[in-house]
Amino acid sequence: MQEHEVVEMLNTAEQGQFEVRTDLALEQKESFQGDGGEISGVKLKEWRRQKSQVKLTEVKILNDQGAQAMGKPKGTYLTLEADRLSKGDDEYHSEIAEELARQIRRLTGEMINWKRNALPSILVVGLGNASVTPDSLGPRVLGNLQVTRHLEGQYGDSFLKDRGLLALSGIAPGVMAQTGMETAEILMGIISQIHPDLIIAIDALAARSVRRLGTTIQLTDTGIHPGSGVGNHRHSLTKESMGVPVLAIGVPTVVGAAAIVHDTVSALVRVLSQNDSTKGTGSWIEEMDPDQQYQLIRELLEPEFGPLYVTPPDIDQSVKQLSFTISEGIHQAVFARNSQSLRPEK
Amino acid sequence: MQEHEVVEMLNTAEQGQFEVRTDLALEQKESFQGDGGEISGVKLKEWRRQKSQVKLTEVKILNDQGAQAMGKPKGTYLTLEADRLSKGDDEYHSEIAEELARQIRRLTGEMINWKRNALPSILVVGLGNASVTPDSLGPRVLGNLQVTRHLEGQYGDSFLKDRGLLALSGIAPGVMAQTGMETAEILMGIISQIHPDLIIAIDALAARSVRRLGTTIQLTDTGIHPGSGVGNHRHSLTKESMGVPVLAIGVPTVVGAAAIVHDTVSALVRVLSQNDSTKGTGSWIEEMDPDQQYQLIRELLEPEFGPLYVTPPDIDQSVKQLSFTISEGIHQAVFARNSQSLRPEK
Amino acid sequence: MQEHEVVEMLNTAEQGQFEVRTDLALEQKESFQGDGGEISGVKLKEWRRQKSQVKLTEVKILNDQGAQAMGKPKGTYLTLEADRLSKGDDEYHSEIAEELARQIRRLTGEMINWKRNALPSILVVGLGNASVTPDSLGPRVLGNLQVTRHLEGQYGDSFLKDRGLLALSGIAPGVMAQTGMETAEILMGIISQIHPDLIIAIDALAARSVRRLGTTIQLTDTGIHPGSGVGNHRHSLTKESMGVPVLAIGVPTVVGAAAIVHDTVSALVRVLSQNDSTKGTGSWIEEMDPDQQYQLIRELLEPEFGPLYVTPPDIDQSVKQLSFTISEGIHQAVFARNSQSLRPEK
Amino acid sequence: MQEHEVVEMLNTAEQGQFEVRTDLALEQKESFQGDGGEISGVKLKEWRRQKSQVKLTEVKILNDQGAQAMGKPKGTYLTLEADRLSKGDDEYHSEIAEELARQIRRLTGEMINWKRNALPSILVVGLGNASVTPDSLGPRVLGNLQVTRHLEGQYGDSFLKDRGLLALSGIAPGVMAQTGMETAEILMGIISQIHPDLIIAIDALAARSVRRLGTTIQLTDTGIHPGSGVGNHRHSLTKESMGVPVLAIGVPTVVGAAAIVHDTVSALVRVLSQNDSTKGTGSWIEEMDPDQQYQLIRELLEPEFGPLYVTPPDIDQSVKQLSFTISEGIHQAVFARNSQSLRPEK
Repeated sequence: MQEHEVVEMLNTAEQGQFEVRTDLALEQKESFQGDGGEISGVKLKEWRRQKSQVKLTEVKILNDQGAQAMGKPKGTYLTLEADRLSKGDDEYHSEIAEELARQIRRLTGEMINWKRNALPSILVVGLGNASVTPDSLGPRVLGNLQVTRHLEGQYGDSFLKDRGLLALSGIAPGVMAQTGMETAEILMGIISQIHPDLIIAIDALAARSVRRLGTTIQLTDTGIHPGSGVGNHRHSLTKESMGVPVLAIGVPTVVGAAAIVHDTVSALVRVLSQNDSTKGTGSWIEEMDPDQQYQLIRELLEPEFGPLYVTPPDIDQSVKQLSFTISEGIHQAVFARNSQSLRPEK
Repeated sequence: MQEHEVVEMLNTAEQGQFEVRTDLALEQKESFQGDGGEISGVKLKEWRRQKSQVKLTEVKILNDQGAQAMGKPKGTYLTLEADRLSKGDDEYHSEIAEELARQIRRLTGEMINWKRNALPSILVVGLGNASVTPDSLGPRVLGNLQVTRHLEGQYGDSFLKDRGLLALSGIAPGVMAQTGMETAEILMGIISQIHPDLIIAIDALAARSVRRLGTTIQLTDTGIHPGSGVGNHRHSLTKESMGVPVLAIGVPTVVGAAAIVHDTVSALVRVLSQNDSTKGTGSWIEEMDPDQQYQLIRELLEPEFGPLYVTPPDIDQSVKQLSFTISEGIHQAVFARNSQSLRPEK
Repeated sequence: MQEHEVVEMLNTAEQGQFEVRTDLALEQKESFQGDGGEISGVKLKEWRRQKSQVKLTEVKILNDQGAQAMGKPKGTYLTLEADRLSKGDDEYHSEIAEELARQIRRLTGEMINWKRNALPSILVVGLGNASVTPDSLGPRVLGNLQVTRHLEGQYGDSFLKDRGLLALSGIAPGVMAQTGMETAEILMGIISQIHPDLIIAIDALAARSVRRLGTTIQLTDTGIHPGSGVGNHRHSLTKESMGVPVLAIGVPTVVGAAAIVHDTVSALVRVLSQNDSTKGTGSWIEEMDPDQQYQLIRELLEPEFGPLYVTPPDIDQSVKQLSFTISEGIHQAVFARNSQSLRPEK
Repeated sequence: MQEHEVVEMLNTAEQGQFEVRTDLALEQKESFQGDGGEISGVKLKEWRRQKSQVKLTEVKILNDQGAQAMGKPKGTYLTLEADRLSKGDDEYHSEIAEELARQIRRLTGEMINWKRNALPSILVVGLGNASVTPDSLGPRVLGNLQVTRHLEGQYGDSFLKDRGLLALSGIAPGVMAQTGMETAEILMGIISQIHPDLIIAIDALAARSVRRLGTTIQLTDTGIHPGSGVGNHRHSLTKESMGVPVLAIGVPTVVGAAAIVHDTVSALVRVLSQNDSTKGTGSWIEEMDPDQQYQLIRELLEPEFGPLYVTPPDIDQSVKQLSFTISEGIHQAVFARNSQSLRPEK
């Protein structure tokens, strides 16, 4: 770490400008709490079902102003939080899966037209690298998924309709280092062949705080954006890029190492400012652009090694458990007994 | 097993008409040996490099007559055989990988135009189900593959050309029960996006004889055809269907249970015919169409369970070892030091 | 297949002596049905809980005579059967897991002394090879198991007792080709260190009939015996050999290829005997010892390849689903809310 | 992060006392470089074979004084370093495996008595959690290992001796959260049954510097010690505890998150001390015990989440490649063509 860089970090940290990115809109929103928490163009709603252990928070980014402040596109970001989300408890697992199903139906009800007599075709995409534990959430959900689209080909055109089932298909395309292809390229190709009405993209996310790992599920109707996820997608998977609405379901499984560095610097600056003998330290501080700061910390950490992630050693259990909860939630959302129940809640 | 079915089996077995399919052209050819071995429209060539343990056999199906007799499309079927093919012996592995590379270059040299200044783009497809051991060869080869196509996007347009590397990409699309999509649909889509010049499709095959399991590699320029492979592909992956030439590389990892039944029946009929007190058994035998026979045996074995496969318990070791040999063979074939060496042998 | 061997097979098949081994006591019992079904020293009981889809069958081998007739040691063999046992249906899964828990408690209640104030220590052993799909049941159950024994070391001696939890430990020792050690050696060593009161051994079994694959769970208080299981254990895991009672839980995932051969021969012999022109075939039949017959068929099938197994291509789904059901059944059996409920049903 | 804690961190960091543990003796040694690098009781030797890309460093801790300074037990710590150690390059892989074999023979030659007519029996232990990528090195090496010990039981007592092979066995016991048992308990039990002459324990290590990840292999004759490794072993695996000499082979795959925090603090303190307006910051610094410091940082980072690790996203490739190199190195070391070559180099 070179000195001028540290000086700059100190400067920006003291001014509260230093930001480390998070894939969770909720964390992004929380970072404004010190300013009263109100951001123009961003609406927050929190609730909890009676007796439920699951806390629901909806962040709506309403306009361009909100989008700029949040550093995320306009749309709805819904979070399910529960401390024991990733624990292997059957009863608990059922409650979360049910709530997840309810919210998938609600969000997708605003994205596509659920008709009783023309059930939509849905493609589930499991993003990430199956052989890197914290990035394996997407492929693992796919491993649990019960697809149906091929049954028409096997048992006749009316097979699904007769049973009130929609055509569910799924793919875990792998990551670019495995395929040599952008995930977006692979998906564009598949979409051009099978024409789904909706994409549900599952991805492991990077959070800002260790406390989020394995305790939060985020749903958003905005899809997947460049730079997000553990695998750092370079191309977007959105309605604009894919031509099909994309519901993204994500769970934070890592924290960028940059966030740890940032927290340490912030805490130090806070201490120095409050101590008589050190508060002068703040006097030589100048301004720095937040994106530059972020870039700086990343560079400090990754001279030549690429991005680094912080993850707890029991992440395998969390990812395994959550992949069941999410696949079960999708099953309940899309295979409800009759097409009526597939319509969103009023 | 019902009586009339067994009677029919006996009839057909005694007449030597009874055939159980194999994915190996070599085995198909061998089934004609009793007739002198000569089939019109089929050319056979066998050779062995000096001091090499690998036996090479090339079956060429030259015309429609040959195709009908063999039950396989026109084209070249090359077999590498070695008893210890799937054993974990480093030196041996190197020899096989080298020979495989030589033959990949030779066959693909007739399929596409290798130009020094315009290296082809190749897509490797790992067919099969990663979580069923004998069907996991394709996905495992993909797991070992070093793709390069994305490096241009990351390091600039001339990155590959400067190093004399061609653009290699790869995908393990999964099987229909996992994706709800035909593999052909997925690949058609991907091809429409990335426009490869050649597809190399890796698949686990069904052999006729247990002795072939893990001891044979088949290369063919005819691609993958419906009904072949452990996973029983329903659609073809060929130049006709994909618009791109397809080199198929396969290793037998299972024998259909029908083959075991057939062998037992054949042996019994042989005995009965030679014994004085039982040879009359043949007198009530009538003709039966070979495809009906095959279907019959399959039905006997699989009243409701789908196809059954016979496989040895150490198949995991064979598949693991061969997936290394094949990926290494592909690497040597396509990443030879300079583009000159990528041209086929004269 | 040589002629004299086939002749011998025919002889023995016609006399109904030809036996192919099964790991299921139920199937062994069924093979006597033609004789009226009564075997001295063997007691059969069948029942079904009200509205339940699970059929329960208990075969008790009471004495040496029964043991000899059945080819299995004295003890209790309990079978849970249900057609959709291995299907991924949450509600159904819960019913099976609950019934399994009830039966585990019942059987172990006769094997060890469950005391309210001194809960037993249980070691679960997942036998088999994790990388061969049909042999991976045991290791997969271990992967889902929530062990507790170490929590005392981490959180204090009374941690488990305070919560009414018993000390559960588990190991998936691998197979001999992976470890170079007999499984029995490994377990003897571990037992000498941790002194469990009970072993629960999970294993994939070989059935006689394809219809059993993935539809049956067998529990037995007799442990694991040489030659049983997909991996063909050479040493026994029993109270006698281990010094600790062993409850074995098994699911058939393969049928020996020898069984397929045998069925074909039997069907043929049946046909020949009923047809006027062929019934003389039986006249040259002589006696053969059943074990010799079995050996003969094995040799026909495995000249040099080792044993061969028949398995359906969707075995990965069955094994995955059943491993959850079994681990959940064990959890419910051993972690019931209070120690009282851990006592067997009256 | 609370203020008094940060103050203490600053204090200790400025005094150069702040230490974050590393499993690499080489890194520990390097941390003394500022003091001239000489430590009493510690001997350092570096060399490189002609034209080799592998740098060898041997740290010998000769006495208690050295052990205390280094925080590691007396013994030999040998490091193989190469930038592209974990890259999938066949030629390179061979060179490393060969060097590794040479060093395994050299070190074990001092640990046990290799006799031509009584080859030792060796047990390889693959420590770690197979389902957490950076902790999966040990189980992966075991997956590649060709054991031989069981062949005597299968093919007769002289089978190994006739071929000049020693009895190699192996186990991947899993981690405590999977088994409920201390790894040491499991191994003690197995050793009591099979009586090996030597244990080779493979483990993923925690390094101090990101630059070490996947570029270094450490061999040590001191075995495995409490607190070391990614999985944080609680009991030692040493000659003292096991009764058998233990060669430990480790590769760093993670850096503790505490190290990242520490580096940030150190850099900041360095900057503050050099800047006129901030160097007074140092005046209120007081002493702190290094172990307390380490504990402090760990607590800051892991209020309730357990230890956190930093790892690069392509760790799966490194671990896969290195597991081949290490298993190959072991094979070459122990299965050299004749027993003579198994003797250590002079």
